[in-house]
Amino acid sequence: MQPKAKRRIVLVAEFSIHPIGMGTSVGRYVKAAVRAMSRIPELTVDVTPMSSVLEAESIGTILEAVEVSHRILRSMGAKRISSSLRIDERLDKRRKMSDKTRGLKRLARAGP
Amino acid sequence: MQPKAKRRIVLVAEFSIHPIGMGTSVGRYVKAAVRAMSRIPELTVDVTPMSSVLEAESIGTILEAVEVSHRILRSMGAKRISSSLRIDERLDKRRKMSDKTRGLKRLARAGP
Amino acid sequence: MQPKAKRRIVLVAEFSIHPIGMGTSVGRYVKAAVRAMSRIPELTVDVTPMSSVLEAESIGTILEAVEVSHRILRSMGAKRISSSLRIDERLDKRRKMSDKTRGLKRLARAGP
Amino acid sequence: MQPKAKRRIVLVAEFSIHPIGMGTSVGRYVKAAVRAMSRIPELTVDVTPMSSVLEAESIGTILEAVEVSHRILRSMGAKRISSSLRIDERLDKRRKMSDKTRGLKRLARAGP
Repeated sequence: MQPKAKRRIVLVAEFSIHPIGMGTSVGRYVKAAVRAMSRIPELTVDVTPMSSVLEAESIGTILEAVEVSHRILRSMGAKRISSSLRIDERLDKRRKMSDKTRGLKRLARAGP
Repeated sequence: MQPKAKRRIVLVAEFSIHPIGMGTSVGRYVKAAVRAMSRIPELTVDVTPMSSVLEAESIGTILEAVEVSHRILRSMGAKRISSSLRIDERLDKRRKMSDKTRGLKRLARAGP
Repeated sequence: MQPKAKRRIVLVAEFSIHPIGMGTSVGRYVKAAVRAMSRIPELTVDVTPMSSVLEAESIGTILEAVEVSHRILRSMGAKRISSSLRIDERLDKRRKMSDKTRGLKRLARAGP
Repeated sequence: MQPKAKRRIVLVAEFSIHPIGMGTSVGRYVKAAVRAMSRIPELTVDVTPMSSVLEAESIGTILEAVEVSHRILRSMGAKRISSSLRIDERLDKRRKMSDKTRGLKRLARAGP
């Protein structure tokens, strides 16, 4: 099996999901969604304080993550679900997720 | 065939897409995406100055709109594509797209 | 006073806000936010099923809308607030909000 | 001076900005925005492959980050600027940015 780091990353996306009306602590719903997405083959998932960063070679894989996340929240009894997805599809050059943050991390840490 | 207005709307979404690096005027790409989405059966599309508002009974239909939009921009030569999707899935009561703006329109127009 | 339609629109934005954990019906919070934003001078507000479309000449005016919306939800007792803002700032040509949808509305209505 | 980690984090946000029409490689614009945001006192900035994660005690600090980012892109000659901001304001309990990812990282890494 090809290691994840070597795959050609065409799509990087940012996805966030939460139920509305199930209290202010939505952590267990977010956890369930991350766990469900992590089971999707060909998808790389990383979490940030605001969303999951998704990497894939095909847009279908990214959209499957959205679908399974909504499904898992429905199965947990959520009556209303809000989600947000931003996709960056890049066809002009090969890249890896790490390419996008290299250098930037250093800038951010330098601080005021 | 059942008229669109009578369908049970479970999902309302907001979708926006544009190419990066094809000049500042991206109208023809947006038009092509709206045209492609409008051909999807079971999907209602309405446009605002910032995005397309999508209505459907199933999340698969919403995600198909994202997929065909990326596909059409790729076919037009876009080398990098940015898109944004926000989904509001509501299972606790029936509604129509118009339900969500009734009353609000009046408030906004009242102005300062 | 200059009529709103004649102002030079540099920024068009899409803004959405809701409390988390106050039940699934968040309409009264959304209404309060729209009412508060509508009182901001130099800001044009229009509502869609998913968000408020904001128009202004200066980014400060757009950001003031975000600030007053969070403030009103806090004053209504919201313990957790989620909001989403997308800005399109365009300096290369004059435009009005209506410019962005002309033509697109027709396409969307043509349907499948 | 109080160390950043000890501050009470009320707001966590996710912010992304890019010019439209300046080519597909927008890295230098993103870098300039991150550098400008990192100079804002009372703001913590961390970068992900898709956006900057911002932490602050006041919403004004978050919105200042948006304002300086648009300003820096304008000063670099961008004729059209697209940005996206998602805010999570939480008043019911103290937290730190790291609280939101603890546990989730492990889940994501467990993989399929």
